[in-house]
Amino acid sequence: MTLEIAQLDANQSDFEQRLNGLLAWDSVSDQGVQTAVAEIVTSVRQRGDAAVLEYTRRFDRVDAASVADLVVSADRLEHAWNTIPAAQREALQVAADRVRSYHQHQKTESWSYREADGSLLGQKVTPLDRAGLYVPGGKATYPSSVLMNAIPAKVAGVAEVVMVVPTPGGELNEMVLAAAHIAGVDTVITIGGAQAIAALAYGTETVPRVDKIVGPGNIYVATAKRMVFGQVGIDMIAGPSEILVVCDGKTDPDWVAMDMFSQAEHDEDAQSILVSPDADFLERVRASLETLLPTLERSAIAQVSLANRGALIKVSDLDQAVEVINRIAPEHLELSVDDPEAIIEKVRHAGAIFMGRYTAEALGDYCAGPNHVLPTSGTARYSSPLGVYDFQKRSSLIMCTAEKASELGKVASVLARGESLTAHARSAEYRIKD
Amino acid sequence: MTLEIAQLDANQSDFEQRLNGLLAWDSVSDQGVQTAVAEIVTSVRQRGDAAVLEYTRRFDRVDAASVADLVVSADRLEHAWNTIPAAQREALQVAADRVRSYHQHQKTESWSYREADGSLLGQKVTPLDRAGLYVPGGKATYPSSVLMNAIPAKVAGVAEVVMVVPTPGGELNEMVLAAAHIAGVDTVITIGGAQAIAALAYGTETVPRVDKIVGPGNIYVATAKRMVFGQVGIDMIAGPSEILVVCDGKTDPDWVAMDMFSQAEHDEDAQSILVSPDADFLERVRASLETLLPTLERSAIAQVSLANRGALIKVSDLDQAVEVINRIAPEHLELSVDDPEAIIEKVRHAGAIFMGRYTAEALGDYCAGPNHVLPTSGTARYSSPLGVYDFQKRSSLIMCTAEKASELGKVASVLARGESLTAHARSAEYRIKD
Repeated sequence: MTLEIAQLDANQSDFEQRLNGLLAWDSVSDQGVQTAVAEIVTSVRQRGDAAVLEYTRRFDRVDAASVADLVVSADRLEHAWNTIPAAQREALQVAADRVRSYHQHQKTESWSYREADGSLLGQKVTPLDRAGLYVPGGKATYPSSVLMNAIPAKVAGVAEVVMVVPTPGGELNEMVLAAAHIAGVDTVITIGGAQAIAALAYGTETVPRVDKIVGPGNIYVATAKRMVFGQVGIDMIAGPSEILVVCDGKTDPDWVAMDMFSQAEHDEDAQSILVSPDADFLERVRASLETLLPTLERSAIAQVSLANRGALIKVSDLDQAVEVINRIAPEHLELSVDDPEAIIEKVRHAGAIFMGRYTAEALGDYCAGPNHVLPTSGTARYSSPLGVYDFQKRSSLIMCTAEKASELGKVASVLARGESLTAHARSAEYRIKD
Repeated sequence: MTLEIAQLDANQSDFEQRLNGLLAWDSVSDQGVQTAVAEIVTSVRQRGDAAVLEYTRRFDRVDAASVADLVVSADRLEHAWNTIPAAQREALQVAADRVRSYHQHQKTESWSYREADGSLLGQKVTPLDRAGLYVPGGKATYPSSVLMNAIPAKVAGVAEVVMVVPTPGGELNEMVLAAAHIAGVDTVITIGGAQAIAALAYGTETVPRVDKIVGPGNIYVATAKRMVFGQVGIDMIAGPSEILVVCDGKTDPDWVAMDMFSQAEHDEDAQSILVSPDADFLERVRASLETLLPTLERSAIAQVSLANRGALIKVSDLDQAVEVINRIAPEHLELSVDDPEAIIEKVRHAGAIFMGRYTAEALGDYCAGPNHVLPTSGTARYSSPLGVYDFQKRSSLIMCTAEKASELGKVASVLARGESLTAHARSAEYRIKD
């Protein structure tokens, strides 16, 4: 099994061009998928449960008599929790506790202040009423994703979290149900695909309409989420996962290689990049990658990922490494160096920063506490990890005294007339005292 | 000039159905617009300045030699500030100061905490590097929109705010330039339309690539923003403006009528709804609307808006009014009552809440302090006013001690193996101590 991976030097004249080539990634918007999804969404919107049931029978080969039959009872979730292996139950408990504890720090509170005359200004913060959580089913089942999406919603105070998970061929994952139990999910329905997204967005006889839909899914799910955006809120549309490791050359090369593989094994579009000022170290990691590749369960996927999108990048020093970080704005940034705190001061863009040689990205994926839903494909330039703030929203508060309304009425009148909005001006002028 | 406006009663059997009819609003996605915008975006992405110049000549009839010639100098902005009428300058200054002061309360700070063993968890908050601000040009010019979009960005710490504003036929609005000066906009370029959005999203020789684009625009601008979303961040795609006034019957009916007109004059799709438990008062406001309508400069627009989308709704009491509020999730909510604080406790969804008889919505549009960019069409169920938080983003921080990495490595290993991601598991296991 041969290892192929690009080797770049940040001081080469064509570096920027080659790096751009590696980073380039566009989500495919296939017209066939668009059309199929549009039809499913319209159909569910018009015919509700009947349409959901038809699609579930057709796509998931599940022969239920009604959508109500696809609702999983709280007892069933608790049963899953009680019957999975103890090691898994304990691991889920530790992860859930740590994720909950971390996210509690993110909760935004209402605030207001009074001006000298008693006028009040502020913002009232409220949770969403109801959130929908999509969980992929079938072979790829991710209980960690249940925790990472549901717990911030519950910490925010969302009254009802509705989880949908398809069960292709009737296959139901016990760890996913157990995770739903410990995360406090209120309702679980075993439906999936674009039909589940449409049902959550518009509501059906059985599926409650939600205010926001979060969670990963395949291209049909992602397309449906984009389509219902506006009717409901959605989280980000995620691109392939990426890691950027910056190392001073003093970490065990096998550790760094395996950290790179932990991204590369996700899928063939995943991206693993190592940056170091130490040319010898880069070579030693390359050798580790070569040795370890054949030992991976998912070696075929990792091999393609590294060949297409991986890179080992030589820089002059750690300052140049920081330039590369800010250029890439990586989803995951591992600072495998002596003094990571000195570097993070200069990092402007990254989804999550794993500091020091011990903090493997995989710890963050499961149980360190921070969310594993992170901005991909350079979107860390303007967006943030999923958090409690995604399940809260704000209402501005303004209460003017008669004096303040008079004073501000004069200002508003001038500006409104400057914009030729004279009803605005007159509304303000009514409140001006003589 | 005849007034037409729907009169509903929340206790009628067909109320829900009639209300749904009034609220229904779908943004039209015209295939012709889509195709035209896609061509413009591709062209600007491929040919940069040359394409921007061509479209600007064609659509805005501006005969510039280069895009660089369309950059407005800081001196020119300052000149506008110094030469507009003193009353306008003073009004802009008051508005800018109040908007800045309010938004300073929204700034999010980085936070972190240490666990007992010394491991660190937190979030680092950073401003965006560069924000783009779209300002409509021509007849409809809104200096208030410059303040409301640029000031939160500057308060967030965005280093460079790039404003684009078309000048159809070469027409440049002095108040808009003056507002850009006082708001601290760094660069102003007189380009507009889909070509300006594409230039900001991808960058050209002259137009710097930004990280997020905010600001209102016509259907071409809105379509272009949707299209470049992902390449850059965007703010919400706004629907028509709406107001919901709740009144106990003790406010001057002319005041309430003019507050309703201040929405209705925006455009024919704008929505003004009054809710009251007092049937006589509803009738008196209807009479005021009838009397005042012919006196409006924009009476033709207001007339259509009230006929198509306006309503006077009778409720049993203020508790039922709250049910209507939470059902509608209005952009603007005016609580024209004695004790608005008693009501806001029960309000779950609203963009901005104007409390008391004196707090006309128009004050908030211009100078009270809170932002006038607000969630429309019921999206206040899950989204918030534009704010400083829209120009900041977060990076998660995780730094594990060797001990913590060992302890969490065991947990991550169990969960990763449960998900069949064995490279993840092995990466965590390397950090487990014997």
